[in-house]
This record gives sequence, structure tokens and C-alpha cells, in this order.
Amino acid sequence: MRLSERVNKMEFSPIRKFNPIAGAAKASGVRVYHLNIGQPDIETPAAFMEAIRGYDEKVLAYAESPGLTVLQDAIINYFKPFGVNVDRSEVLVTSGGSEALSMVFTSILNEGDTVMIPEPYYTNYRTFIAASGGEVTPITADPDKGYMFADEALLEASYRPTCKAIAVVNPGNPTGTILSTEDMEVICRFAKKHDLWVIADEVYREFAYDGRKMVSFGQLEEYADRVIIIDSISKRFSACGARIGFIIAKNKELNAALMKIAQGRLCCPTLEMLGAAALYQLPSDYFNAIRTEYENRRNVLFEGLSAIPGVKVNKPGGAFYMMVTLPVENAEDFLMFLLEDFRDNGETMMYAPAEGFYATPGLGKNEVRLAYVLNAKDLRRSTEILAKALEAYKNR
Amino acid sequence: MRLSERVNKMEFSPIRKFNPIAGAAKASGVRVYHLNIGQPDIETPAAFMEAIRGYDEKVLAYAESPGLTVLQDAIINYFKPFGVNVDRSEVLVTSGGSEALSMVFTSILNEGDTVMIPEPYYTNYRTFIAASGGEVTPITADPDKGYMFADEALLEASYRPTCKAIAVVNPGNPTGTILSTEDMEVICRFAKKHDLWVIADEVYREFAYDGRKMVSFGQLEEYADRVIIIDSISKRFSACGARIGFIIAKNKELNAALMKIAQGRLCCPTLEMLGAAALYQLPSDYFNAIRTEYENRRNVLFEGLSAIPGVKVNKPGGAFYMMVTLPVENAEDFLMFLLEDFRDNGETMMYAPAEGFYATPGLGKNEVRLAYVLNAKDLRRSTEILAKALEAYKNR
Repeated sequence: MRLSERVNKMEFSPIRKFNPIAGAAKASGVRVYHLNIGQPDIETPAAFMEAIRGYDEKVLAYAESPGLTVLQDAIINYFKPFGVNVDRSEVLVTSGGSEALSMVFTSILNEGDTVMIPEPYYTNYRTFIAASGGEVTPITADPDKGYMFADEALLEASYRPTCKAIAVVNPGNPTGTILSTEDMEVICRFAKKHDLWVIADEVYREFAYDGRKMVSFGQLEEYADRVIIIDSISKRFSACGARIGFIIAKNKELNAALMKIAQGRLCCPTLEMLGAAALYQLPSDYFNAIRTEYENRRNVLFEGLSAIPGVKVNKPGGAFYMMVTLPVENAEDFLMFLLEDFRDNGETMMYAPAEGFYATPGLGKNEVRLAYVLNAKDLRRSTEILAKALEAYKNR
Repeated sequence: MRLSERVNKMEFSPIRKFNPIAGAAKASGVRVYHLNIGQPDIETPAAFMEAIRGYDEKVLAYAESPGLTVLQDAIINYFKPFGVNVDRSEVLVTSGGSEALSMVFTSILNEGDTVMIPEPYYTNYRTFIAASGGEVTPITADPDKGYMFADEALLEASYRPTCKAIAVVNPGNPTGTILSTEDMEVICRFAKKHDLWVIADEVYREFAYDGRKMVSFGQLEEYADRVIIIDSISKRFSACGARIGFIIAKNKELNAALMKIAQGRLCCPTLEMLGAAALYQLPSDYFNAIRTEYENRRNVLFEGLSAIPGVKVNKPGGAFYMMVTLPVENAEDFLMFLLEDFRDNGETMMYAPAEGFYATPGLGKNEVRLAYVLNAKDLRRSTEILAKALEAYKNR
């Protein structure tokens, strides 16, 4: 009875592994501000639960493997204003963006294959890639250049013959970096040259600030055959607990492969799909208020952090994360200090240490990811706690 | 841009791949009796939707990765009457039994490893095993011996050094075979001798007929360290569309491995977990009426089939499937005849061809799986259609 090599290579989520320690702090009466996880405090639109409450079938039966057509069609309509025309056979509903990634990597990776990913990256990519026997080939993005990576020379220098795909999150998690159309062209040309799949994780598509207009990889028709869009309702509609995501792909062979896996796992939950379909019927101005709210939060957090001596911070253009370099040697050690030792008026805060967001050993030890998913007041308070804790940590 | 070898080895679900053809028949006004899929017509208990309708949190947030504690605790209580004592850290809630299997195989299989499975088997096992780079090592069960496989000599003859686990569904899908405690001991002793994991899929635990008392592999304490129980609410509570399953395991290293994967995919849907927890509060006599109903259906289907000339049928002891040998050369060809050509009063029926339930080439070509998930009247009508269609097929 042994475990697989692939599972031995996996790590516990650096975003979730400190939860038990935070839980202990909370159990002892301490208030913990959670900036460690992308769990928005924005209300889930009421349309979601209304659709579910209206379900009145007597038997909650299996759905079709690709998803309910009502949801597929809602997704197709959602993409039209982006100029992305999608056929029903090109939409596969999944249990969150997580299952979408898992299915894609199972479909394209052989043992020893690798996926190019700009680092720092959303850490669960490593888990899904490892589950398929693959590894990450990092494209190391420079904090001093705003974590930008869409540079031909950098991509070529990072490339290895084992690479089968390049995966990007746009707007970026954890960096908040937004790719321009030119950046996307650079990435796609590079992918075409080396015959790579382009995995475009666009779950934060609506979260672009300072008037930036978001472009989907689905709009680059020249590369349609190699582009795989990963999407999800979790962030878009603040419905993380629904676990509804989807894959958009135009490549027929890939879609056939994905369907084999989809049939194996039978289907996604019917009720959650009904709720998701209702969310896509919301008027498109729904996003405007949300975007303004997040943009304001970003500004508040950026200002608060910029004022702390020794803290280096990039002002992100999108999503709701900020990568921050702290004036400490080891951000995990400082996090333990925050959770176990430091209290300010019975309160403390929590971030995600970024070392696990890097494949290159030694990088990210003093970097952290903050999610600005709390209201402005709580964010201000969190930066105040962070400043005080850094001071106390230095003097401990 | 190539696809992975593992996905190329996968097949479309033989249970689902004829759905489009059945869909075309239905679109043309034909009534199709679905005996091809284990989708019960039993009503989902109202408690499920009531619990969900009562949800009133403003934000549908991520749940903890192992599942809601209210559901974990309900599962722990459910197992107590079986004499199986489970700790919260030993219950991992999953997106259906499907994700449970997928996580387990990812945790234990290296490329080229195999899993011993009695054939005919639930075909999706092959998909999940292939997704982890493994293969099936079949234990060929003899229809003439009621598909029984818990025989030391048969197990030893089937064993290969590549085997890492033995997986059994009890009561069996697709055979309906029930293992006695002695059978389970034979399997576990064999597993211990060869240091194999024992994957015990007990999703049909309550569906045991003729007064049989079901024993869980969890009751064999001597083997607790190697037993992995796969479970699900789909069949137990006729809630297939909820996609809630779980894994019960006592091995701490395995549970840590599973937790890495679970954290990677974040969590299961909150609402469905609340509904599932409510189902486990139903009085235990809930199952008695259901069991009587299915036992009656089994009898009706068995009698109907036994009366058809040339049809060979095993009377199953549990679950709600029946393996049947038809007097045809190719059951897939005959199914196409049923769906495309044969109509009796505008009606036809559908089964799952069993060739895809075998790993050994050439087996199962004239075998089919019937699911007795329809009411007695519809089952009688289905066997009537089958008899007439066999006659018409012979004379075509």
C-alpha cells in the first residue's frame, strides 16, 4: 500500500493550510481579517437562490454530462458582446474552474510533460498539473516590472521541450496584471511557434480597473484551435460556494477528449446549474457597481500598504489580489506570529504567503498575496494591523 | 498540440453514448423506456429541497475542503448502527462517488499501475483509472456462477505484480452480486498478502434483498488501514443530480494525500451538502419501503426476462441492476435496432450494452445491463417490448 508519486509531489494549499491555526485564534475570541483567500464579501445576487427555490421536479435526476442547456445557452449569450461566438458543443459545464483545469490537464499531459506558467501563480495550478503527472515550467515574472511576462525573449528563455501548454490567468491571480491585446498576441504567436495549447483562465474577466477594456483570448480567432478558456461564476457573481465553472474550446478533438472525462464523472449538480443560469440573466450593468466597489478597495489597500515603511507593492490593474513584498525574511514565519502571538485590540489579519506560488526554489519567501475582498473599512483596519505587527515582529 | 495518451485510452461511456440516438427517437415522438442508466424514479425526499430552500446566508461562500461539519457528523451517525466508528478527520465529502474514485486513484496509482476489478464492472472505473495513468486488471467473473469472484484461486490467477489495489462494488453494479462476510474476508486476506488497497464502493448498501443483511467493509477492523470506502447519496436517497459523495478511510497517510487534492479543488457545493445532511436525518425506516419496492421490481423484471426464449438472466441479490445474456451476436447492434428501427405501439426500450463493462477483449458482446429503476408496470412493458424486438430482429 503505497501512495502515488504524483500525490507525494503535491503540497497542501498555501492558501488553506493555515486555516486551522486561524481557526484556533478565532475560537479563542480573536477577530481575524481574512485577506488570504479570494472569498468576496459581495452579496450573491438573489436571482441565484430564487431560481433554486423554484425547482419543483419530484426526482433530482442526473443532468446531461455537458451541462444543462439553459446554462450553456446563457453562457453563449454572455459571450456575444465580446464578439466571441460559441456553439453549444463548445461549452462544457464543470464543478468550478477547478474541475475545468483538472479535466484540461488530464486531456493534454503525459507523464513528464510540463506547462509554462508565469510565476508567481495561482498555487492550485501546481496541484492539478501534478495530478496529471506533469510539472510547472515557470516563467519568472519580475515584481519590479509589475509581474509582466508577455515578452518574447522571456518566454523563449523559459521554454523547455517538455512544454505542452502555456497557462495564463488574465486578469491575473495573484498579481492582478492585465494583458493588453498585444501581450495576448505575443503569447499566442509564441504558443503557435512551439505548438502549445493556450490555457486562458479568465474568471476575473469583469474585474478590470482604471477604464481598461477587457479582451478575451476567445477574440483572437487566428488561434482559436489552440485556445482553451477556463471560466467560473465564483468571482463574477460572488458565488464561490456554488462550484460552477466551464470550459470554452473550439478544438473538436480536445472537446471529444473532455467529453469522455465528463461522461465518466456523470454531471454537475442540477440546482447549482439552474442558479448559475439565472445569474447570467442579470442586466449587464450589474458589473459596473461591483467593479467600482473593487476599484475603490484596491485604491484603499494600495494606499494603506504604500504608507508602511519597507513594504513594496504593485498597483494591480485587475482581479482582486495584490502581491506585496514585506520587510521580513520569511513571510510564513511572520504569518504564524500574526496568528499566534500578535493581537491589536483583540484583532489580527491573515494573508497568503507567496513561496508556494513559485516553482523556482528560493523565490517568494518575503512576498505575500492579499485579496481585497473585504470592505474599505476592514481593509484600512487590516493594513493598520499589518503595520503594527511588522513593528512588533521587528522588536520581538 | 497533442492530447494525452491517457485520454486517448479512455472511451465514451457505454451507458451514455447512445443517448443522442435515443434523443432522436424521442424527438420523433417515440416513448423510450430507459433501463440503461441507474437513474431511479423514486422521489427525492422532500427534506432535501426544504433544507436548501431554508438557506439564507447573503454570500454563498466557499466551504471548508473536507465538507460541511453538519454533513460529516450526519455521516458519522449513519455509520454507527453498522458498528463502524468514524472520526471527522476520516470523512471527506466529494462531488459524487465519481470524484471520490477520481481522488483515490490519483492518490495511489503511478503510471502503469493496475487495479484489480471483477468484470463485468461499472464502466466509469476504467475512465477514472485511465485518468490516473493506470489500467484495469480484470478478475473475470463467470455468469454461470452468478458473477461471484471472491475465490482465492481466481483472485491469485488474476493477480499481476502491477496491481496496487482491488476495487469491488458491493452490492454489485452491474451484477447485483452481494458479498458475504466470508467473501469479504477472502478479499481482504488476499489484499493483505499482496499489500493492496481495498476500495469498497458501497453506494448500494441499503439495497439488499431476500432478507440479506448488509455488512460494510468498514466492519472488518483487522483490515481498517487498507480499506477505502466509496459512498454517495445518489442511489441511497434518489438524489443523483445532487452530486454528493464521500470517502471513508482510516489510513492517515492516505487521508493526508486526499486532503491535498481536496484543497486543490477547494470544496463541494454548500447547498447540496446542506440538503444531503438533511437526508441523513430521515428515520431509518425510510429504507424499508424503498427496499420492498426495488425487491418487487427485481422480481418483476426477472420473471419477465426469464420467460423470453434464449435470454439468460441471473437473479441479483442487491443493487438495482441485472446482467442479462441476449440471444443475439452483438448487443450494440441490437440496441441500434431498438432505437432506430423497432417500435411497438410507438414505444421502444433501451439497455446498456455490456462489452464496455469488460477489459478482456471479446467478452460481453451479447450481454447487457438492465437497471430496474422504473415502476413494475413499466418494467413489464419493457420486457414485452424486448421480447417482441428480439423476435423482429431475428426475422428482419
